[in-house]
Amino acid sequence: MAGENQVRTFGWAATDPSGIFSPFEFTRRATGEEDVRLKVLYCGICHTDLHAAKDEFGVGMYPLVPGHEIVGMVTEVGSKVTKFKAGDKVGVGTMVGSCRSCETCSNDLEPYCPKVIPTYNSVDNDGFHTRGGYSNEMVVNEHFAIRWPENLPLDGGAPLLCAGITVYSPMMHYGFSKPGTHLGVVGLGGLGHVAVKFAKALGLKVTVISTSPSKKEEAVRNLGADFFLVSTDQEQMQAARDTLDGIIDTVSAFHPVMPLFSLLKNDGKLVVVGIPNKPLELDIYPLIAGRKMLGSSAVGGMKETQEMIDFAAKHNITADIEVIPMDYVNKAMERLQKGDVRYRFVIDIGNTLLASPST
Amino acid sequence: MAGENQVRTFGWAATDPSGIFSPFEFTRRATGEEDVRLKVLYCGICHTDLHAAKDEFGVGMYPLVPGHEIVGMVTEVGSKVTKFKAGDKVGVGTMVGSCRSCETCSNDLEPYCPKVIPTYNSVDNDGFHTRGGYSNEMVVNEHFAIRWPENLPLDGGAPLLCAGITVYSPMMHYGFSKPGTHLGVVGLGGLGHVAVKFAKALGLKVTVISTSPSKKEEAVRNLGADFFLVSTDQEQMQAARDTLDGIIDTVSAFHPVMPLFSLLKNDGKLVVVGIPNKPLELDIYPLIAGRKMLGSSAVGGMKETQEMIDFAAKHNITADIEVIPMDYVNKAMERLQKGDVRYRFVIDIGNTLLASPST
Repeated sequence: MAGENQVRTFGWAATDPSGIFSPFEFTRRATGEEDVRLKVLYCGICHTDLHAAKDEFGVGMYPLVPGHEIVGMVTEVGSKVTKFKAGDKVGVGTMVGSCRSCETCSNDLEPYCPKVIPTYNSVDNDGFHTRGGYSNEMVVNEHFAIRWPENLPLDGGAPLLCAGITVYSPMMHYGFSKPGTHLGVVGLGGLGHVAVKFAKALGLKVTVISTSPSKKEEAVRNLGADFFLVSTDQEQMQAARDTLDGIIDTVSAFHPVMPLFSLLKNDGKLVVVGIPNKPLELDIYPLIAGRKMLGSSAVGGMKETQEMIDFAAKHNITADIEVIPMDYVNKAMERLQKGDVRYRFVIDIGNTLLASPST
Repeated sequence: MAGENQVRTFGWAATDPSGIFSPFEFTRRATGEEDVRLKVLYCGICHTDLHAAKDEFGVGMYPLVPGHEIVGMVTEVGSKVTKFKAGDKVGVGTMVGSCRSCETCSNDLEPYCPKVIPTYNSVDNDGFHTRGGYSNEMVVNEHFAIRWPENLPLDGGAPLLCAGITVYSPMMHYGFSKPGTHLGVVGLGGLGHVAVKFAKALGLKVTVISTSPSKKEEAVRNLGADFFLVSTDQEQMQAARDTLDGIIDTVSAFHPVMPLFSLLKNDGKLVVVGIPNKPLELDIYPLIAGRKMLGSSAVGGMKETQEMIDFAAKHNITADIEVIPMDYVNKAMERLQKGDVRYRFVIDIGNTLLASPST
């Protein structure tokens, strides 16, 4: 039962590494001075949710309520909140806290703060496990909430809070934002397809690189990519050598990266944002011969996330999504595992998350 | 026998992959309009010379005359030469030609030009094999010759033309040149020991990282490094986590790099300049968690090489060397293979290279 500072909350949780979700009742803190409380309306399903539910990171804090692509409506704000008022639309992404005082935080790079608090499967400052957006309500320090632009769809915009910022941030950081830059995007999934949209909106030339020839039409006709390469086609890959200024590699499975490096011009940068489950293998000579680099990137900080969302609104960028009801989550996870979604499931929390049977 | 445009030259060559050197007579072109001709005085022995002599790159053009750390005195200049006159001291490093017209060359990055011509074991514009500084004379387009500063020793300065620029160039390119930057130098050999000297002259804080505890005194007392880490000592490595802004990794043997990444702060860069004989293994998660990068670098361009040599002269930087006679080269290669030199052999070509017995 909820104590006086605890508010009863409903969600769906994985209760063990089988990763099967079922309804779950828990509590969240009452709205603090700097907090906003929100009714969750939509929550995207990120591949990380699946990994976490199945405890593939080995740190599962069960019952585990995932979800870090959250859009909702503010229902209550604390006395010191300045950015939001009840009724505002807000987004919550992959983190709900950081130390706010270290050099990293001062540089608006909260995701890299040693004390960053992920939105779920972590421990909050109050000692309770953090639990994500597969739930009817969230409460979060206003610093970690995003102002939602008027014209940005709530459902299609939700995945931008993780998938979007994960590809937007390295474009900015590694200098892939100048019009005319030729960018490669490896993998056309949840991250890759929004990478193409951001890159085109920035005025870049975009080559999509995929193992699946079948994705060509999608990449070029629907998403507006300029070129498409099948990474296993030696002839295509050879013809495209030394043509790219940068590459964003969104693939999480182990894959050979040296063919990707061969596509880069001198001083080109391959930036990995996916996390393969075994080490990548790097031949050094081809890198040195062109002074090439391998970079990495997590999500962006709160300031950059707000910029990204505002940019998306301005350029009408949303993820391509399939909206599902809450009780479809187990089926959705099965399909996600097989790559059977174009490109992101978004749970319609507001209309379909019912209070758990136990209440 | 030399034709009218060919000048008889003496050197020592490896004639097959045994890598054994013996006296060798060959020809070089007559001095062209833009060429300088030089009497070789000193030539450093780079580890690459040994690899090439033994055909470890699989492209050996025998008889193979190595040497790309060359200092000499100009004996003749072509009619259009403007930078040099007879009697000048000059240096020749790792390359003797490039296209001079591509974007890379225009940006003073000749080593990365697709048509770069290495100083030896390559084919020159005249169709002849390039042959390096283990010889009494060189002839080279003046663009690829370095003005030698008055006060820089010829023998100790010679290795800067490869070892020196290989570590100086990434310090400049990757932003490791600001006083106060904390730089790690991995490996205390020919490259590493001059890296420490350049870094200290630039005002950096320097940590040397080595597998050999015995090198600590050398690193700290003799070379002026601030700290020394034994890379296999877990406790030391743990205590030094997140302390370095950048690392220059000079090690050519395969080695684990993830412990090195753990030493870097967020946004830190590990720059490899050695070429291990098998792929390095890269775990991606620890990189992403700190937005860390792996960079690479070859030697610098001619403009930067001149800057490096002038900087070395100003700060009295030379390599620590063992001067040897030409006929010691086979013994020197044996010792080099065992790492038995502190830190660079330099052949006293001017005084010890005799015309071959066949002349």
